[in-house]
Amino acid sequence: MIPFENAFDQVLQNTLDLGDETVTLLNSTGRILSEDIKADRDFPPFNRSTKDGIVIAFSAIEKGISSFKIEGVLSAGMPQKSLSTDINCFEIMTGAVLPKKADTIIMYEQTEIQDGCATITSIPKKGQNIHSQGTDEQKGAILLKKGTEITAAVIGVLASVGKKEVLVKKLPKICVVSTGNELVEIHETPLPHQIRKSNSLSLAAALEKVKITPTLLHIADDKNAIEKELEKAFLTHDIMMLSGGVSKGKFDFIPGALTNLEIKKIFHRVAQRPGKPFWFGIQKEKKKVVFSFPGNPVSTFANYHVYFLPWLKRSLGLKVEKQSAILEETIQPHPSLTLFVQVTTQWKDGKLIAKTIKGNGSGDLVSLALADGFIRVPQGGEEIAQNTVFDFIAAS
Amino acid sequence: MIPFENAFDQVLQNTLDLGDETVTLLNSTGRILSEDIKADRDFPPFNRSTKDGIVIAFSAIEKGISSFKIEGVLSAGMPQKSLSTDINCFEIMTGAVLPKKADTIIMYEQTEIQDGCATITSIPKKGQNIHSQGTDEQKGAILLKKGTEITAAVIGVLASVGKKEVLVKKLPKICVVSTGNELVEIHETPLPHQIRKSNSLSLAAALEKVKITPTLLHIADDKNAIEKELEKAFLTHDIMMLSGGVSKGKFDFIPGALTNLEIKKIFHRVAQRPGKPFWFGIQKEKKKVVFSFPGNPVSTFANYHVYFLPWLKRSLGLKVEKQSAILEETIQPHPSLTLFVQVTTQWKDGKLIAKTIKGNGSGDLVSLALADGFIRVPQGGEEIAQNTVFDFIAAS
Repeated sequence: MIPFENAFDQVLQNTLDLGDETVTLLNSTGRILSEDIKADRDFPPFNRSTKDGIVIAFSAIEKGISSFKIEGVLSAGMPQKSLSTDINCFEIMTGAVLPKKADTIIMYEQTEIQDGCATITSIPKKGQNIHSQGTDEQKGAILLKKGTEITAAVIGVLASVGKKEVLVKKLPKICVVSTGNELVEIHETPLPHQIRKSNSLSLAAALEKVKITPTLLHIADDKNAIEKELEKAFLTHDIMMLSGGVSKGKFDFIPGALTNLEIKKIFHRVAQRPGKPFWFGIQKEKKKVVFSFPGNPVSTFANYHVYFLPWLKRSLGLKVEKQSAILEETIQPHPSLTLFVQVTTQWKDGKLIAKTIKGNGSGDLVSLALADGFIRVPQGGEEIAQNTVFDFIAAS
Repeated sequence: MIPFENAFDQVLQNTLDLGDETVTLLNSTGRILSEDIKADRDFPPFNRSTKDGIVIAFSAIEKGISSFKIEGVLSAGMPQKSLSTDINCFEIMTGAVLPKKADTIIMYEQTEIQDGCATITSIPKKGQNIHSQGTDEQKGAILLKKGTEITAAVIGVLASVGKKEVLVKKLPKICVVSTGNELVEIHETPLPHQIRKSNSLSLAAALEKVKITPTLLHIADDKNAIEKELEKAFLTHDIMMLSGGVSKGKFDFIPGALTNLEIKKIFHRVAQRPGKPFWFGIQKEKKKVVFSFPGNPVSTFANYHVYFLPWLKRSLGLKVEKQSAILEETIQPHPSLTLFVQVTTQWKDGKLIAKTIKGNGSGDLVSLALADGFIRVPQGGEEIAQNTVFDFIAAS
């Protein structure tokens, strides 16, 4: 049994780099850029009107002219025009190209328009209301760096430079394996000694949030079946995510099977609650990683968030950032185990305030469904005072 | 022009209830339950072993017996057995059914097993290591209430009660409409006076996060085309989400077209930056709502998060909860406009600390891509001190 800190470090030291792949723009949300994105032209690409009004040459103002004959109307999407003389103006709309020989835009509110003529009611500043070409970004500038997460706003940038396809980090192919002879499918009516599967569906739903659609596989508690099925699954997946079969029971064949399959055990059993029997291993040459979680739902759910999600972030080249929360109550740490305690949270004056949920133990799915996440309570002797800051692990 | 607070209230007063629909369990993540979920049996459904070890009748301990003949091994998934006499025991695994005539489980660590006999090394407590039937939840109890968001943990609960299909709130059908003759598709090479569409793709990516796949529609800046196309789109969508065409320019036909289509304007123009020309309207009888955002990307993005997301939450029957953040810097409010200022955030001791991004103005997509969200700075005169708490609107 190793301490949490050690287990966490080892998980983060055993990441996988699975390379890159190209996806279409609208399939890229939530993925991680594997290329720098450069401006393919200046932004804005032309001197752009930022107001609806008239556009003039400032030289006219210097000559004392304040009334201008309207030559026409310029709107966004029209090719650039040219002002024929500085005693004229164009009406111009937001987004339109500044015409040649013009340099100043006056909004409608500061003009009076009558009989094809615009009279200005206040003296403009030369160059006003123009968003000049290249002032946001110049052609060739790096707009987004490799390693950026593709959010909705990033999609906007990618669209504006014409990236209909984009190079992103590959995601691991994951097989979620449930074991346990007591488990039946959700559409079945369980016999009195049976229960329906829930862990694998819960994991599938959580993985969906990180853009991974796992394969779901159920294997009976049979040593040979487990080895054979896992061996097959390893051929087409990078990650095995197992739940159940890692305790000390007589039918907990998983650790043995994984060792026989030449997955190197990094650790088995962590000084933590829930999730003590967690088994973690790797096959470096073949780039296979195994997260083997205990069978009870809260253990699996906590381990997934505590270990797998940071592992995934690190594997994708992202920083693993810690979130924190302030616990309103006192809490008694465990003398030898790191605790992951279910909490609800709410915002108060820029602070994330946590309250523990009184659950019925590690099997209680219903209290888990109420939780916003877990706080991590390091092992210790003394009761911890209220309003102490803890690491917070948000639930998916 | 109306103040932000007024606009926000009016948006939340004009929600739509679109009713319910049934979806399959694995398609229900992120949706909102429209039914109470009840326990179809007790949880746990039987007296369940929580340890690997042996199971005995405590009456034996009272008689001074400490060594037990092993009758067999009980594992999870086996039907209930019965202890034949209290001088015997079973080996029992975690998750297995407690046998009849037995009531106490002793973990392996506190036994010595030799020659088919288990000797206990310490005195157990009667009933220990048993998770009793119905102690988590009793049959018929409400496990999840109508109105619960379906998270990964909720999926686990739904699976365990056999909900292969689930009744959820319907989501609105949304048509994202871009207007503007300057816009070309992302795969096209724009002419010098043209730019590629980005708003509608950015909105589509943001909507994906709330499980909505919108229709994308582009309409030229032509009054008749706009009316005709919008009228058609209204037939098959609940929400129009437009960007562009709501300023005061000569080609901003949207407000007129919407009025002609008998969409009642609730407001047009809000005292805010970005996003001043925002137009909001509703057709109550036909249950149609229109969010018509200004054309520039930052305005559309801010308005979507500030108005649409709370509107959606309220329409789905959820509480609109406010998040907040602490701004490290001083900030100058605007005398008459509510500002939505782009910030990056980081966690520090349970607090969300914000820093402003120095953007190039409301058209600057690249600075938007760096932002974690917006803080809302109410209008005012005096500079606001550092470390003040602001409402924070997280970016998708």
